[in-house]
Amino acid sequence: MNKWYSTAPKGADPIVLSSRIRLARNLASLPFPGRMSREQQTDLVARVRECVSAWHAESFTEYNETTPANTLAALAESHLISPDFAGASHIRAAFISGDESVSLMVCEEDHLRLQLLGQGLCLTELYAKADRLDDDLGGRLHFAFDEQLGFLTHCPTNLGCGLRASVMLHLPALAQSGGLRRISENAAKMGIALRGFFGEGSDPAGALYQISNQASLGLSEGEILQRVTEVVEHLLREEMRLRRELLRADEGALSDRVWRAHGLLSSARRMSTAEAMRLLSDIRLGISLSLLPEEADLPLFGLLREIMPAVIDPQGKMTPTERDTARADLLRKTFSRKE
Amino acid sequence: MNKWYSTAPKGADPIVLSSRIRLARNLASLPFPGRMSREQQTDLVARVRECVSAWHAESFTEYNETTPANTLAALAESHLISPDFAGASHIRAAFISGDESVSLMVCEEDHLRLQLLGQGLCLTELYAKADRLDDDLGGRLHFAFDEQLGFLTHCPTNLGCGLRASVMLHLPALAQSGGLRRISENAAKMGIALRGFFGEGSDPAGALYQISNQASLGLSEGEILQRVTEVVEHLLREEMRLRRELLRADEGALSDRVWRAHGLLSSARRMSTAEAMRLLSDIRLGISLSLLPEEADLPLFGLLREIMPAVIDPQGKMTPTERDTARADLLRKTFSRKE
Repeated sequence: MNKWYSTAPKGADPIVLSSRIRLARNLASLPFPGRMSREQQTDLVARVRECVSAWHAESFTEYNETTPANTLAALAESHLISPDFAGASHIRAAFISGDESVSLMVCEEDHLRLQLLGQGLCLTELYAKADRLDDDLGGRLHFAFDEQLGFLTHCPTNLGCGLRASVMLHLPALAQSGGLRRISENAAKMGIALRGFFGEGSDPAGALYQISNQASLGLSEGEILQRVTEVVEHLLREEMRLRRELLRADEGALSDRVWRAHGLLSSARRMSTAEAMRLLSDIRLGISLSLLPEEADLPLFGLLREIMPAVIDPQGKMTPTERDTARADLLRKTFSRKE
Repeated sequence: MNKWYSTAPKGADPIVLSSRIRLARNLASLPFPGRMSREQQTDLVARVRECVSAWHAESFTEYNETTPANTLAALAESHLISPDFAGASHIRAAFISGDESVSLMVCEEDHLRLQLLGQGLCLTELYAKADRLDDDLGGRLHFAFDEQLGFLTHCPTNLGCGLRASVMLHLPALAQSGGLRRISENAAKMGIALRGFFGEGSDPAGALYQISNQASLGLSEGEILQRVTEVVEHLLREEMRLRRELLRADEGALSDRVWRAHGLLSSARRMSTAEAMRLLSDIRLGISLSLLPEEADLPLFGLLREIMPAVIDPQGKMTPTERDTARADLLRKTFSRKE
């Protein structure tokens, strides 16, 4: 089945890679997962399984404590489940739709974590769909809700509407300019966090950044979506302005940089994840500035997932060198017409 | 006209690039060039011009003090004349054959410097031809010769038979192993010098080294050719052994290195001379170990000349960035079939 990230729509936004909506929900009748008995966990998973099986529009695959550790690691690298959830050992389950656009974790930090993913800036559409699924779940399971605090969640940052809205952006020019620090500080005052995509506090590998609201208490869903969108639009304008500046300052140097990335991706026999992300970032920048031909337009966001260590080696049987070789093979087949 | 270095013969030695024979001669009737009058210099050039015009087998082009400085710089970069000769201002001339295999400098350090160049290890053949040309010159011009010291030359290292025999080798594995220092010290005891190709004492750009005799006094031509050949053959054996070791130790890493070089040469939009030489060295190594396909076999030695700054920009009108761009364009056209 095609994944939601497999093919980029024609004329896709060159800067916004993806949007994500996440809702946190808990049942009124149960303690938080950390305090649940195995029987309660098993029972909750069964009740949610029943809800999901009624969602006839899509088919879902269940992953749980019987799933091999490396498969769970690959799902975490793909941001379909959280690393904590992947590494846990208690009774739990994740239901993931065939196109990977919907995932529902049961017994993570909260009883339910519903996530929707989509290409480009599509927070409003994703939220509309999440809202429908949430209504369905809420109709079958009685959620803990307080007039003052909203939906009750394990972590106070998720109180209120329990909504986390995130957008992944490719910001190579801003990252290079050093201007992100100031923007990040200003966004924080609006309750919006700007982080490197791969994990909180991680280095911004491939110049990928995630924008998301830090808390949801006291804000409506509409207010959260609006604030995140405002920051995203500001970043888009700044990034485009700086890209044009880079082009004006030295188009030849930029062209050299993106074509070298293309040459290495079509030729190398071994490549680390970090180098691959850096080069894919250059390719994306090159396409957006028409320095690389349109035909080089590739499922870059899909590739970002496919080059991750546990995605390349789901059985966990490869040495690092074997993984680097398999990664280079995958990238070479994608970028080179010659083989 | 095809140059002697334009096309590599099929099955050419992967390590020996070229051989060079140089003879130093002076006329008994004249002081050394540094002490000659302008009239004497003009007269000597005219007499040699007459000799060369009688060599009907090849046509020669004359370069002299009226030649543009950048053309002379390009000839020096191609090792057809010496840098000192290119930069001088006195009356002088260089006669260079159409295929650039023969060059004759008049009024360099000595009255005459005859040079012959050829691909691969061909010292004996080159010397035989040089000997014939030398006999012809000696029959028309009376050379200074002493029973004890042999041919008299400006610098004592050229006394004796006045022969300098050189071989250019590509030694990437030896250079990487650090073993060249010891070999160089041992060769020096035999009167054989091992130097980086681009200028004495320079860095071994592109892992190219020149082996040559340091002096000629007290040695016959045959002895010099034999000693140089012995050191060359020792280096060949060591280099091949180390290449096989490199391949055995990590063929994947070596394959990655040579394919990356190919990717960059077919893609980059700007490239410095030093990077181009390093990458061409990797390509040559890759072809010799069959890590790159035979069809990638290119006139690498010719390219080494064509990427030099003054060859790229004979008018001396380009900025360094423009030269790097022109160099990348030339290399890309050679290595990429796509454009």
